[in-house]
Amino acid sequence: MLNLFCIVTVLVLFINTLKPLVPNVDKKLESLVIVKVIPDQQYPPTKGEVWPKPQQQIKEQTYFKLSPSVFKFTEKGETCEILKNAIERYTIVLRDIHRIVCRHSKKKWKHAETRKLDTNPDYKGTLEELQINLSRPCEAYPHMDMDENYSLNVSAVSSLTSDSIWGILRGMETFAQLFYLSNGYKDVLINSTQIVDFPRYPYRGLLIDTSRHYLSVANILKTLDAMEMNKMNVLHWHIVDDQSFPYQSEKFPQLSEQGAYDPSMVYTKANINKIVKYARDRGIRVLPEFDVPGHTKSWGAAYPGILTQCYESGKVVGLGPMDPTQNTTYKLIRELFREVQDLFPDKYFHLGGDEVAMDCWRSNPDILNFMARHNMTSTSELHAYFMTKVLPLLGQKSKPIVWQEVFYDGAVLPSDAIIQVWKTIGPQDMIAILSKRHKVIYSSSWYLDQLSNGGDWYNFYVFDPRRIIDSKSLKLEDIVGGEACMWGEVVDDTNFIARVWPRASAPAEVLWSALNPQYTLSNGSEIASRLEEHVCRMNRRGIHAQPANGPSVCIGRI
Amino acid sequence: MLNLFCIVTVLVLFINTLKPLVPNVDKKLESLVIVKVIPDQQYPPTKGEVWPKPQQQIKEQTYFKLSPSVFKFTEKGETCEILKNAIERYTIVLRDIHRIVCRHSKKKWKHAETRKLDTNPDYKGTLEELQINLSRPCEAYPHMDMDENYSLNVSAVSSLTSDSIWGILRGMETFAQLFYLSNGYKDVLINSTQIVDFPRYPYRGLLIDTSRHYLSVANILKTLDAMEMNKMNVLHWHIVDDQSFPYQSEKFPQLSEQGAYDPSMVYTKANINKIVKYARDRGIRVLPEFDVPGHTKSWGAAYPGILTQCYESGKVVGLGPMDPTQNTTYKLIRELFREVQDLFPDKYFHLGGDEVAMDCWRSNPDILNFMARHNMTSTSELHAYFMTKVLPLLGQKSKPIVWQEVFYDGAVLPSDAIIQVWKTIGPQDMIAILSKRHKVIYSSSWYLDQLSNGGDWYNFYVFDPRRIIDSKSLKLEDIVGGEACMWGEVVDDTNFIARVWPRASAPAEVLWSALNPQYTLSNGSEIASRLEEHVCRMNRRGIHAQPANGPSVCIGRI
Repeated sequence: MLNLFCIVTVLVLFINTLKPLVPNVDKKLESLVIVKVIPDQQYPPTKGEVWPKPQQQIKEQTYFKLSPSVFKFTEKGETCEILKNAIERYTIVLRDIHRIVCRHSKKKWKHAETRKLDTNPDYKGTLEELQINLSRPCEAYPHMDMDENYSLNVSAVSSLTSDSIWGILRGMETFAQLFYLSNGYKDVLINSTQIVDFPRYPYRGLLIDTSRHYLSVANILKTLDAMEMNKMNVLHWHIVDDQSFPYQSEKFPQLSEQGAYDPSMVYTKANINKIVKYARDRGIRVLPEFDVPGHTKSWGAAYPGILTQCYESGKVVGLGPMDPTQNTTYKLIRELFREVQDLFPDKYFHLGGDEVAMDCWRSNPDILNFMARHNMTSTSELHAYFMTKVLPLLGQKSKPIVWQEVFYDGAVLPSDAIIQVWKTIGPQDMIAILSKRHKVIYSSSWYLDQLSNGGDWYNFYVFDPRRIIDSKSLKLEDIVGGEACMWGEVVDDTNFIARVWPRASAPAEVLWSALNPQYTLSNGSEIASRLEEHVCRMNRRGIHAQPANGPSVCIGRI
Repeated sequence: MLNLFCIVTVLVLFINTLKPLVPNVDKKLESLVIVKVIPDQQYPPTKGEVWPKPQQQIKEQTYFKLSPSVFKFTEKGETCEILKNAIERYTIVLRDIHRIVCRHSKKKWKHAETRKLDTNPDYKGTLEELQINLSRPCEAYPHMDMDENYSLNVSAVSSLTSDSIWGILRGMETFAQLFYLSNGYKDVLINSTQIVDFPRYPYRGLLIDTSRHYLSVANILKTLDAMEMNKMNVLHWHIVDDQSFPYQSEKFPQLSEQGAYDPSMVYTKANINKIVKYARDRGIRVLPEFDVPGHTKSWGAAYPGILTQCYESGKVVGLGPMDPTQNTTYKLIRELFREVQDLFPDKYFHLGGDEVAMDCWRSNPDILNFMARHNMTSTSELHAYFMTKVLPLLGQKSKPIVWQEVFYDGAVLPSDAIIQVWKTIGPQDMIAILSKRHKVIYSSSWYLDQLSNGGDWYNFYVFDPRRIIDSKSLKLEDIVGGEACMWGEVVDDTNFIARVWPRASAPAEVLWSALNPQYTLSNGSEIASRLEEHVCRMNRRGIHAQPANGPSVCIGRI
């Protein structure tokens, strides 16, 4: 299997000193790779199976037919705008599924076949209603401790029950996924089903990077549609980086005027409000990241004074990370972050803190003087100094999330700071962080920029991060979840959706369902078949997810 | 750099016994990998550079401005429908480039800046005309020996000269690519340029596979647009295979009625006529492949009798390759191929002949009896027997192309049969075939289903197949070209275009330009920058090619 591509890869690795963000793996983990599927193989899609898999489900042989002119959602408990929007949205989803039937029935529908359905003893008639029993008033915005539990009972008059609007939203998605086309695409059916469901992890995120390539607002909204279908609940928006500054600030308009790729490639206040509201309606938080002090070159287009001058042989050769010795740096950060905090209602704020180019700091005589005056012997201490000054700038309004380097470099972290692990695949970083009583978001296994041949989702269907830690003294609940990361170097509007989906569906299921490893080990085909159905379902709802496995067909794609 | 994904890959290879179509590589070829670029790095796009690179080009500092209201194409020699269509098409291309200027000029256009252009001594005014001097009458259809040479001279009144309509088409594409946006997207400029250009190889193909996943007609037409932009001239249409039979036959309508994925997922006679004409207008041949005797399970939906029954422990367990012992097999092939020959005007017909599941043949007692009666000791002989009977069924109308197994298994091949090499990356198969005086199409290096991280086009920018053969006794001109192969296991309408482009642009340039390896070795950045411009150019012309390298921006994408 040695081929030219491997050889090229070796050569390229040799000449490649700049490869960003590739996690290392703990060799002992080989035994934890748990889905056995054959790449490029055809897997028959399931019918009406839910992705991610519900925690408890009983499905009966009896079934009902969907007729959009008969079926209705009814609010039996509390209600609110979020619920009303969801009812409108899912009414359209069900109507669209039914349209496939209408298109197919034009040519071939026969009364005889209708009768065949009607006389089948398992057929229980037309589905009439889903009663929605929301027992508590809606919360205004999703949050880390949001309640997503729900129970669903499908019969002629069906019911969905939850204490929380977020649980209702999850249940409505599950309900929509239970429908399937049958009898040669001539009927939309749903089986009698009882489900009790809840997520394993409260934080199930997707990172998007709008700095390496700009992503259109339409594409971000489409991403939120797909996240809802996969029960992911955090859009981690890595909005700016070295390459461009598309965030349009009202206080500092020059940041995007000078730093965006183009005046058309910015996110205005109106854009962000729209995205945040669209996400909230789907029970999804939008977590802003403004990465400091590294990954900030685009800030320097407007404000070069806040960046460090990098030296070579006594001469300035360019600009590097933020300059931690300048008060103006912190002032700009504070003012900008206040504006961002007003725009993003989430209780968390991601400050970045990864991959600081410390060589540049070390090359600069003023920085070295500053370090000497403050008795610092390493630039890691300077990084810690910088982050320790920046963290309190968030004030009471937001709690911080930072990449793991901030923890390891020794910044003074508030106890409620969450650390995002990305550098090692395996337990060791999580153990180090948990033992200091910080919460953890794990993302190392889910770097979607890692490509392999074929439908490579199984590379990301790896392990439940809480299960790989073998320690009774650690509080595993402090691993609050994980995140699929789609770094933007080689994705833009042309390929973003198809590259993310269904690959991100793998961590979405791991983080929601946390299936027993024994089950996973022996059910590769079942998982592949469910994902096959799920991809077609996404396609039918307008999300251009790429093929999951091998050869396949999806009727009714939008 | 060892990571989880490698580990998963190793595991998957272990459990994967069905992986199709992965070529092996000759280890000695390591030294021939010749483009040095850094994955994920940002490469600044060139301005008005042509892809694939012309053979001879002189570009001057002086330049002209494009004004669509002034500029016109004029026919000074022969003309025909193909030329008139091309003029219409490129008139729109130039108008669309200019629209980007109009959009940008609305906000910021200043008379001062106009004057700045007008007073620049290198500025020579507005481009008025491209005179098209076609010296011979148009041919009706492109062919293996088509003349694609042209010369182009850009000045106020520019001229494009060729003996052949096909050369004129190539030159018009080059002309369109010489334009670039300048002065902050406020002007479309073109430099004074002289080009003499011709292809290194007469056959520069792209294989599409419409059986593993159906591709819409719209997507195939878009692919032809992209091929024209990359000066590729053969669409190798692997139209049917095991998984589905989308070709709609008039003589045998049941083949697609039973064998297509869905009644909507077929190619009708009208669809094929449209595709063939669209391709011809762009100087692109459409080469049909009906792969026999393997890769034919979908034929069996309508005609199970032509397939071999495979046995296990004395019982029939399924259907395998075509049954070479049945006369009905050959009769169906002959009748179907006659119809296909009438529909596709190309002088070649691809008969496949790869990867025959000989285990099935060996399991069948009737096949074994037949072999014994004909004194055959191996199923390779049976394969040769089958192909030797099928090859003459093409009659005088088409010459055959076959995959390399047909050659190695010893079929009696007519001297004008072309052999397509796919199994080994390197010279050995080409040498074996050339020494038997057959022509060769080389495709092993260009399997686009081989994915790597980053903008991985450089994996396909490998070597000129004629240059790696170190033999004076062989006729290197018999290597007629090469082909990028996009097998369909994991591509469909959602990701096809973005996955093929710009990755197929790499072999397109190798096969047209055949740049000196010394040049290639030392100009990785230049190649990457030209491809960066080319991707944006494709985007602006409505082809959603994915990012070529690392972070980038494309203004004016459609």
